[in-house]
Amino acid sequence: MAGHSEVLLRPKTTEEVSQIIKYCDEHNLAVCPQGGNTGMVGGSVPVFDEIILSTSLMNQVITFDSISGILTCQAGCVLENLSQYLDEKDFIMPLDLGAKGSCHIGGNVATNAGGLRLLRYGSLRGTVLGLEVVLADGRVLNCLATLRKDNTGYDLKQIFIGSEGTLGVITAVSILCPRKPKAINVAFLGCNSFQHLLETFQCCKVMLGEILSAFEFLDASCMKLLEKHLKLSNPIGECEFYIVIETAGSNATHDDEKLHNFLEEVMMSSLVTDGTVATEAAKIKALWSLRLRVSEALTHDGYTYKYDISLPVEKIYDLVKDMRGHLGDMAKNVVGYGHVGDGNLHLDITSTGKDPALQAAIEPYVYEWTSKWKGSISAEHGLRLR
Amino acid sequence: MAGHSEVLLRPKTTEEVSQIIKYCDEHNLAVCPQGGNTGMVGGSVPVFDEIILSTSLMNQVITFDSISGILTCQAGCVLENLSQYLDEKDFIMPLDLGAKGSCHIGGNVATNAGGLRLLRYGSLRGTVLGLEVVLADGRVLNCLATLRKDNTGYDLKQIFIGSEGTLGVITAVSILCPRKPKAINVAFLGCNSFQHLLETFQCCKVMLGEILSAFEFLDASCMKLLEKHLKLSNPIGECEFYIVIETAGSNATHDDEKLHNFLEEVMMSSLVTDGTVATEAAKIKALWSLRLRVSEALTHDGYTYKYDISLPVEKIYDLVKDMRGHLGDMAKNVVGYGHVGDGNLHLDITSTGKDPALQAAIEPYVYEWTSKWKGSISAEHGLRLR
Repeated sequence: MAGHSEVLLRPKTTEEVSQIIKYCDEHNLAVCPQGGNTGMVGGSVPVFDEIILSTSLMNQVITFDSISGILTCQAGCVLENLSQYLDEKDFIMPLDLGAKGSCHIGGNVATNAGGLRLLRYGSLRGTVLGLEVVLADGRVLNCLATLRKDNTGYDLKQIFIGSEGTLGVITAVSILCPRKPKAINVAFLGCNSFQHLLETFQCCKVMLGEILSAFEFLDASCMKLLEKHLKLSNPIGECEFYIVIETAGSNATHDDEKLHNFLEEVMMSSLVTDGTVATEAAKIKALWSLRLRVSEALTHDGYTYKYDISLPVEKIYDLVKDMRGHLGDMAKNVVGYGHVGDGNLHLDITSTGKDPALQAAIEPYVYEWTSKWKGSISAEHGLRLR
Repeated sequence: MAGHSEVLLRPKTTEEVSQIIKYCDEHNLAVCPQGGNTGMVGGSVPVFDEIILSTSLMNQVITFDSISGILTCQAGCVLENLSQYLDEKDFIMPLDLGAKGSCHIGGNVATNAGGLRLLRYGSLRGTVLGLEVVLADGRVLNCLATLRKDNTGYDLKQIFIGSEGTLGVITAVSILCPRKPKAINVAFLGCNSFQHLLETFQCCKVMLGEILSAFEFLDASCMKLLEKHLKLSNPIGECEFYIVIETAGSNATHDDEKLHNFLEEVMMSSLVTDGTVATEAAKIKALWSLRLRVSEALTHDGYTYKYDISLPVEKIYDLVKDMRGHLGDMAKNVVGYGHVGDGNLHLDITSTGKDPALQAAIEPYVYEWTSKWKGSISAEHGLRLR
């Protein structure tokens, strides 16, 4: 999505944000807050002639308490920089996502970003402990508590989480960070039906239990696009579905044993037809990139219609199959991937170019389908203007 | 706290709640919603002549999905009954507290109850996925989603979590339930200083990692009251501080080994002076009762002034020591216990009877002290009228 604006302001402090917003309020000037500008739905893109208020210079860590693991920082800190800062202290951020190299923590909170670790560490509604927000008239609302528990009145900060900048500008964030796991393992597995994938997920939850930190999937169409456009190679035999499972724990020997027992079980019962495991960083990264670079592969395939759907987990792939049948030859590719653990499907449809007829065939069909199965048409990306 | 009311209504359905509230709104009648009536701050107690609206007959489970672990039930379900219901299905409730035998899930949500499992499973702000609420004019607000992720607009249900019935009556709840752990261990340990207790906590977080499910403490004064009033016996040698550590995991052998390594470490380094471990249900219950029955022991000691404070974890016991020095002989006993893992201190002060001079010595001292150290004067109990 492309926008345009004649003015870009880059304040360094909350006080400067407050002055800008107050001035704009008094002079009836529209403002569009912008973080890393990586959002999928255009929340950070000016659609008329809004002044862009960028948090890119608000990139300072304010405090970190290594006893409680509570980090307080300015809203413009890049997620990956925070992860690196914490890494030295043996902690990690409770969220991780593909855009980590550019996205800002303030934008993550403003859009209530989900990502890869939600299955393990929960949503930002639990991990964000405090926020500082500049309201529409320039007043500063300080809810920047650094307490794990606080029940004194309504939890006002919640209303700003996921509000996409519509209620105020988030200027600082306190967030609870987990300790860095001592052992990480990644398994890349293949299944020949979505039913087998679901059964593998159930088995995984029982046998990996508390060390399971991600359960992601991509379909065979995604793999073809990774191979074609990014020249990535499939590390296992050809399958209908591919799964990325990550474990994170405090004892490598125990984790290896749990993973081994689990793999034996799903291989023996033929739920999984092929697989490979990584324990060292470079191979872990290579396996993860098969999941994380799907979105990039799609951009090379043509114009992409992207949908971010929550559904009961057993229904998520039916939408992809039904959409394929519904669109027939109109679409170039209809692919499904996403976060099985959270019931969150990314449904992407590619076309050689922007195609109003294709779009009319997709929408409202996708919304009606989702509504029929009591899903949500935005799981983790937000709404804003589309 | 004692209240009085001439009318108690016990609706069975949301529709009945809606009709009652609509009628009361039209006739200017005040209503006090009441769950299990176990709250610590009087949120469920009528203070003038309110009509009591009890959820005690709204005790039906609506749905449970064993793939996702999402439970949807009426607000009047007793927490322990829900735990029993889930136990058969190999799941547990994400919260547990001393009052589980009587408290209602609707009341738990309305007060944003914390309890014993917050350290592991996070707060209700993350685990509650949906709510149904009857608003002040009788309209029914249905936010009863059963999705792990939903980013379509502001998360209105959050404003009702912890609102203590002031914004509406919660009539149904959807909540994400974890799988039942296959192994539970409880260790009861003794330390001779709060500094040692904190160091034990740090060591515990590193060595038990993902299987740590509770880290609770009580001081020597609590133990004396348990012995005196409830005839419980101290299972270990006399110490300044006692710790209850619970582990919950998916592999008993691995958990035993982690716990063993941790105990060896804290015993060798003299952080812990004595301890005992339980793995079978009856002994686990007996060890837990030393922590859970402190509140009951206090009621036998006289009139009790109760405080529920959040503080940076390294400061929590300083408040107890300072309060003891400040009150001198005025108080019968000044004791501290609570949830170390969450930085949540329960500070209780007993007296032979209600004593305005003692109360004046405690308040505002306790509030000023807490404010000075940027704590919260209500960690998990709420506010309401006191």
